[in-house]
Amino acid sequence: MPSRRGAPEMTLQMPPQKTASGNFFEDFRVGQELVHATPRTITTGDVALYTALYGPRFALQSSDEVARAHGYSAAPVDDLLVFHVVFGKTVPDVSLNAVANLGYADCRFGVPVFPGDTISTRSTVIGLKENSNRQSGNVYVRSTGRNQRGAVVLDYVRWVMVRKRDAGAEVTGAVVPDLPTVVDPASLAGPRGVDFRAWDVAASGSPHLWDDYAVGERIDHVDGMTIEEAEHMLATRLYQNTARVHFNQYEQKAGRFGRRLIYGGHIISLARALAFNGLGNGVLVAAINGGRHVNPTFAGDTVFAWSAVLDKAPLAGRDDLGALRIRTIATKDQPTGDYPEAGEAVVLDLDYWVLMPRRGMAA
Amino acid sequence: MPSRRGAPEMTLQMPPQKTASGNFFEDFRVGQELVHATPRTITTGDVALYTALYGPRFALQSSDEVARAHGYSAAPVDDLLVFHVVFGKTVPDVSLNAVANLGYADCRFGVPVFPGDTISTRSTVIGLKENSNRQSGNVYVRSTGRNQRGAVVLDYVRWVMVRKRDAGAEVTGAVVPDLPTVVDPASLAGPRGVDFRAWDVAASGSPHLWDDYAVGERIDHVDGMTIEEAEHMLATRLYQNTARVHFNQYEQKAGRFGRRLIYGGHIISLARALAFNGLGNGVLVAAINGGRHVNPTFAGDTVFAWSAVLDKAPLAGRDDLGALRIRTIATKDQPTGDYPEAGEAVVLDLDYWVLMPRRGMAA
Amino acid sequence: MPSRRGAPEMTLQMPPQKTASGNFFEDFRVGQELVHATPRTITTGDVALYTALYGPRFALQSSDEVARAHGYSAAPVDDLLVFHVVFGKTVPDVSLNAVANLGYADCRFGVPVFPGDTISTRSTVIGLKENSNRQSGNVYVRSTGRNQRGAVVLDYVRWVMVRKRDAGAEVTGAVVPDLPTVVDPASLAGPRGVDFRAWDVAASGSPHLWDDYAVGERIDHVDGMTIEEAEHMLATRLYQNTARVHFNQYEQKAGRFGRRLIYGGHIISLARALAFNGLGNGVLVAAINGGRHVNPTFAGDTVFAWSAVLDKAPLAGRDDLGALRIRTIATKDQPTGDYPEAGEAVVLDLDYWVLMPRRGMAA
Repeated sequence: MPSRRGAPEMTLQMPPQKTASGNFFEDFRVGQELVHATPRTITTGDVALYTALYGPRFALQSSDEVARAHGYSAAPVDDLLVFHVVFGKTVPDVSLNAVANLGYADCRFGVPVFPGDTISTRSTVIGLKENSNRQSGNVYVRSTGRNQRGAVVLDYVRWVMVRKRDAGAEVTGAVVPDLPTVVDPASLAGPRGVDFRAWDVAASGSPHLWDDYAVGERIDHVDGMTIEEAEHMLATRLYQNTARVHFNQYEQKAGRFGRRLIYGGHIISLARALAFNGLGNGVLVAAINGGRHVNPTFAGDTVFAWSAVLDKAPLAGRDDLGALRIRTIATKDQPTGDYPEAGEAVVLDLDYWVLMPRRGMAA
Repeated sequence: MPSRRGAPEMTLQMPPQKTASGNFFEDFRVGQELVHATPRTITTGDVALYTALYGPRFALQSSDEVARAHGYSAAPVDDLLVFHVVFGKTVPDVSLNAVANLGYADCRFGVPVFPGDTISTRSTVIGLKENSNRQSGNVYVRSTGRNQRGAVVLDYVRWVMVRKRDAGAEVTGAVVPDLPTVVDPASLAGPRGVDFRAWDVAASGSPHLWDDYAVGERIDHVDGMTIEEAEHMLATRLYQNTARVHFNQYEQKAGRFGRRLIYGGHIISLARALAFNGLGNGVLVAAINGGRHVNPTFAGDTVFAWSAVLDKAPLAGRDDLGALRIRTIATKDQPTGDYPEAGEAVVLDLDYWVLMPRRGMAA
Repeated sequence: MPSRRGAPEMTLQMPPQKTASGNFFEDFRVGQELVHATPRTITTGDVALYTALYGPRFALQSSDEVARAHGYSAAPVDDLLVFHVVFGKTVPDVSLNAVANLGYADCRFGVPVFPGDTISTRSTVIGLKENSNRQSGNVYVRSTGRNQRGAVVLDYVRWVMVRKRDAGAEVTGAVVPDLPTVVDPASLAGPRGVDFRAWDVAASGSPHLWDDYAVGERIDHVDGMTIEEAEHMLATRLYQNTARVHFNQYEQKAGRFGRRLIYGGHIISLARALAFNGLGNGVLVAAINGGRHVNPTFAGDTVFAWSAVLDKAPLAGRDDLGALRIRTIATKDQPTGDYPEAGEAVVLDLDYWVLMPRRGMAA
């Protein structure tokens, strides 16, 4: 039996709390800075898992050779993998006690991320508003992911409804930030030091370039993908996202749905991979204007998706890439040939800008 | 609300079809060249997933040190992972509308693939034969995978039965290529610049070298492996194989089997991993002479395998490696101690050449 | 039809056994050296899979930048991933015919492992004791994993009950090694050439350092994680662990439990990942004093864990790290708020030393 040195009785009876239980609504203050834990080096292992989990086929992210031909040092990491890693870091501090993830806004992707880069995340509380029932309130945070050189890789706002620890706690004032409904395309620069003029549509698998899309056009992405428990849990752990509802069937079986909830970001990535078929040259996600997880998804659900082109814009100062504003709607267990916009089958409604190579003047 | 610039009314009503629906039988022409999309950089992440999916234990592919001791720059990627990546590229153009994958022939592995290599695939249509019911026809393609230096990593023929878009479409002529039933072992050179004379059987886990196998010998590989839905879907997405029948339970539940079909290549890799126990020094697959997916497999099936030595041949000009022609038969839910060759439990019948180190003269 | 050269009739009828069936109790001798097969290069792909399988968030293993800031060349591989790879190598020779894995002792981690390192394993038989029923006996082995430079990465003793091939086989003598119940903390040096004095608790996600833990303290790790079949099989194949009970549902359905058993090491890794919440700065596992897989686990089980601090010790000659002796108990389908020590729900009882940064004198 080991010795018991250094163990005063009081400590034995009342140890300091070692387990983190996350912040509750009354713990937040507007202007508060949150340094999130676990800087994360992204590797080709993460990229392979991402491919296995969703099956994306975008040529730029699939091939170092394609990426180098356009001026990258290697294939950049899928933008949404970066999103999930940055998002995952914020969960222990922001949304461990969340009732609901309410929305995203003003989400901009920064410098590309390459295998070997290490991502760290900080957030600032930019808004707080208690609910009238005083059980919970909305927390608005701006979160910024940076690489090991301090360059921003992602910057976005999300708001979540967070429970109060103590309903009686006094919370004074309310600040609701003014958020743009769309990221101004004039502010989208596209990646620097690269040039997509020689984009190879045979390698990319789609002949349709920026010039070929019309505002108002709708695309049914046709394919469906069924989700298994092992898949969404592998994904969510890969992102080091600790939200309990995704992992603990013992607890969930007594809950509202009786089942583990799938991380909403898993559906975003699945919808984006399905959208390859129709948007195959939309190689980069430049910004997310907004998004809602309209209904929950569960293992066994088959996800379908369709997209509408909401807008298109050239990029200032460059003729190799243009921006398409896309609305992608994903459903569960309902094919999307009739372009459903609402209803119980709709699980995701995402509004984002993709960058797509333009048809060259000479071609 | 975004502006609607550049969106003529006609486009809104009849957008050009953006979603690829694959080629139908009448779209193919003998001599046609198909440049397949998505050049794919293979990484150590892919290798780790391959190990996790099948559990192969071949020392050459497991250890950079073993590989370097024999003259490789690093552990080469498993030949079948290369096969799946090359095969996956061909699906959107060749077999998206396939009724059945009918066979493989004259499949030869070329230069080794290492993590960091980027594989591209092209195919040539070498045969076409409409079925008498005019609903479909057989398409024969020779597909060639190349690395970023243009060196061939895999070259093979497969033929698939592909639906017609329009049964009434006229298709003239029929070309059925003359295909070898076996790859001539005199044409198998083995990898260049490497030397297996100092092969370490303690490291490899099997004392049996090329010299120890007799033509006619049969080996029951004993072990069984049960397949889960998440596993075969992770694998098939990793290979960027888009065949719908593997992923979409919503659609499949109304289909012939009521379930998702497992990609046949998943069974090939599983059988090869099981065959390690008995063929542990068969470190390289040099060629596939032919193969049939005799019956479909589904999640929940437990796969077993046995092998017969059909032939053996030295390699011209080298005494470090010899070739064994192996027939591996895999079953589902039936152990293979009685060496079944046919029946409903048989799911794979594969005929291939492996290369195995030879017993040194001095030993 | 291929020629049948070199195939004498006798070989056809009685081929030499090519399939390995593992050692039985009477095959072992005290002092016997076992060179295990399959040297294994560990890559960032393995690390990504490990993260996806368990969701660990230890900053040192998650971030190359954190590791470099403390003197490492890169993020070291999780100690338990090293354990599983070393353990996996021993299975074909030591425990393929095991009835039960009885215990571990004197398990010490050596030099850190980095992606690119190749691990080889050897074992020495250090004890043998036949059971009184003569059907089986206990085999004690000391197994040592080394990197490509011959440096020890792990050294441990385990004992397993192994079936006899022939109950009538004579086995003389019995040797039971004298094993320590705890690794002497005075022998724990901690990793060389690194310095944890500037450890960043914001990055690590836990404010609690070595100084803050008291002997006798108990920590409920709160969270639960449900296990799927695909997950534990992916893990166990990744470790190239060939124990049949984990993979073959066809065989297991006729067995004692009717189901595939989960590799005990999978539970160790899961418990360690859960224990991050409360032991987040316990960045290195220095030694495992002992461990028991108290009850089997199966897919669908939800694993919970709690820990007790059994002892604490400074490390000789350094003030940046201290050792905590931790007992972690994992349960299935039972939250651990009441710190259960025994019962049917307890699946793991593990006793180990972790290293944790100390509070600096100046702080």
